[in-house]
Amino acid sequence: MNYITGYYTTRFGELWDKSLFDLVEEALRGVLKQNNLESSQIDAVFFGNMLAGVLENNLHSTSKIAEILKINVPIFRSEAACASGGVAFNLAKTYLDSNPNKNVLVIGAEKMTDYSPEETITGLSAAASGEEQETGLTFSGLYAMIANFYLEKYHYTEKNLAYVSIKNHYHGTLNEKAHFRRKITLNDVLKSPYIAYPLKVLDSSPISDGASAVIMTNNLSLAKKQKYSVSVLASEMMSDTISLKERKQIDTILATKLSGNKAFKTAKISRKNINVAEVHDCFSIAEILAMEDLGFWEKGKGGKKIKELSTMYGNGGNLIVNTSGGLKAAGHPVGATGIKQIGEIFLQLTNQAEKRQVKNAKYGLAHNVGGSGGTAVVTILAS
Amino acid sequence: MNYITGYYTTRFGELWDKSLFDLVEEALRGVLKQNNLESSQIDAVFFGNMLAGVLENNLHSTSKIAEILKINVPIFRSEAACASGGVAFNLAKTYLDSNPNKNVLVIGAEKMTDYSPEETITGLSAAASGEEQETGLTFSGLYAMIANFYLEKYHYTEKNLAYVSIKNHYHGTLNEKAHFRRKITLNDVLKSPYIAYPLKVLDSSPISDGASAVIMTNNLSLAKKQKYSVSVLASEMMSDTISLKERKQIDTILATKLSGNKAFKTAKISRKNINVAEVHDCFSIAEILAMEDLGFWEKGKGGKKIKELSTMYGNGGNLIVNTSGGLKAAGHPVGATGIKQIGEIFLQLTNQAEKRQVKNAKYGLAHNVGGSGGTAVVTILAS
Repeated sequence: MNYITGYYTTRFGELWDKSLFDLVEEALRGVLKQNNLESSQIDAVFFGNMLAGVLENNLHSTSKIAEILKINVPIFRSEAACASGGVAFNLAKTYLDSNPNKNVLVIGAEKMTDYSPEETITGLSAAASGEEQETGLTFSGLYAMIANFYLEKYHYTEKNLAYVSIKNHYHGTLNEKAHFRRKITLNDVLKSPYIAYPLKVLDSSPISDGASAVIMTNNLSLAKKQKYSVSVLASEMMSDTISLKERKQIDTILATKLSGNKAFKTAKISRKNINVAEVHDCFSIAEILAMEDLGFWEKGKGGKKIKELSTMYGNGGNLIVNTSGGLKAAGHPVGATGIKQIGEIFLQLTNQAEKRQVKNAKYGLAHNVGGSGGTAVVTILAS
Repeated sequence: MNYITGYYTTRFGELWDKSLFDLVEEALRGVLKQNNLESSQIDAVFFGNMLAGVLENNLHSTSKIAEILKINVPIFRSEAACASGGVAFNLAKTYLDSNPNKNVLVIGAEKMTDYSPEETITGLSAAASGEEQETGLTFSGLYAMIANFYLEKYHYTEKNLAYVSIKNHYHGTLNEKAHFRRKITLNDVLKSPYIAYPLKVLDSSPISDGASAVIMTNNLSLAKKQKYSVSVLASEMMSDTISLKERKQIDTILATKLSGNKAFKTAKISRKNINVAEVHDCFSIAEILAMEDLGFWEKGKGGKKIKELSTMYGNGGNLIVNTSGGLKAAGHPVGATGIKQIGEIFLQLTNQAEKRQVKNAKYGLAHNVGGSGGTAVVTILAS
């Protein structure tokens, strides 16, 4: 069994005074300190990052981490667009599965605000297919197409989508590390400017900076020594085509469905056991699809279910979703997101989630998506 | 035990009429056909690539591979500069070590010739540290500093370096897939223009396009069914700092030394057992350091040893090095290199190396380096 024994995240937001590696260093040192470990006790590092190559002409990130930690161990960088963090975690788990008694660091980070919007948006478009990029379709445009299809097929309106953002912004007010910490109303969402119809500014996650790190170990005696520890029941990753035109159904993210099914099978628990989940809400429509494709809600019912706000903290539901604020309000520093999701579940399962602590949370799920569904990683943790 | 059962490589060179994914597709289909496997029999894919993000704004490569193969399996992209291919192989081995009865594809590819030299060289510089990039130091410049240090410390001249290129160009004449297929003389090397003193054009590997793929399995019954199969005795990866100023010794690539020592320990064989090796000769000096740091030659003796040309095919030596032509003559499509090296050893150990077949080759080693030594991967194979 693999255990997560520590989690540290920088604040997410527009951190103009911090470079990518300032953020990486803060997260690495933060999580090591939490576990009272020296870097010399680390056996391997897994780093999730999307854009350092494109934005900073930086393709030596693993060596920079060796320099920061002053250690010689294998350090891997994984890239899978917005799922880069989740994939790093998945590879770390695979590494532990075949290397007994090891401690690994898993870190995700992204620095996005030092660039012009054109640079950042071009970089993010690299997650879309070449064909889609050539048509001028942005990332928001792709999810807007999915949203239009979904709303029409199941007879919903933009209002239904808005409740995702209302909920996640409320959760953001409860999380000190979140990019946005203010409540928003239905009216706020509906009156915010369109980015790509029907998606508006307040349907969309922001461009953020941040870094998040966890320590994972399969050394049971070390895990037992730590104050906090959660068990990794499953981490499953799945790839799919990226162009929407290659998909059989654009209102289903097949990679989510397949990795979710596999993860529940591996973890040997049912959907009903999950008390807290962090799902990939890069756009409001994405959280609805995630809840359906993960099997929490029936396909097509998500638009109705979200309006009930049973997944919002404080409403007494059995499953609370995106207590961190999700990508929408906690922010979306691309490579960090997958690790922050896992970290938030760690906080919930160890009773460290403070103002947003879900009572008696025993099982949690983290769900990270790359691009418009080219990759999905589903991780299931237990207290 | 893990087995390599097939290898396919495209021709390396300036392949103006092929895109990155044309090359990827040719290599994937080529290796599947060789093993008479359908893509549906593949359980995971590992892809090594450095520059698609920077040069093509393409960060959806894993999804594109899902599209080409028409399968939903986990597909991972690893990036570690010039060691991207070797790292992909190392991760694939880790995956197999914890997943019984699986077949994986490992592919490396790079498309480098559709861009201006400035674009390609800026992209390649991304492997150097930020500080080094800011000084204007190119990749050749970094290796030139190492070469100057080495030549002065051990009292050699540029002539000593030249023999690496003479040998590897001769091997290139014996390999139909090589970028350069002509012999060169000592005079040719010494009269070629300087790139960064003391390194000249003919001390340097070229900018090439290409893709190489292997199939690896831990399904013994499948391996036994295949015509050719070699055992993977070890694959070890190590990271180190990248800036030369952070290194204790710049005439030693510490990552090579550490991963090499670990690989020989894991494989439980000695240096003397190795009959064929592919080592990372991005510049002539790099092959000399590799031979020393891998423990084949004593530190400082490499300049003398290479002049004897005992590692050249046909000279009766016990260890023949870079029969493919190495990076120097076979070419260096960055992400493909680490896989081509492993593939060349596979060909040698299965008696398929035709004109350059080393007699009775039983053990082989492949050695792949990222940047100026930020990463090294050492793989040991047995027939």
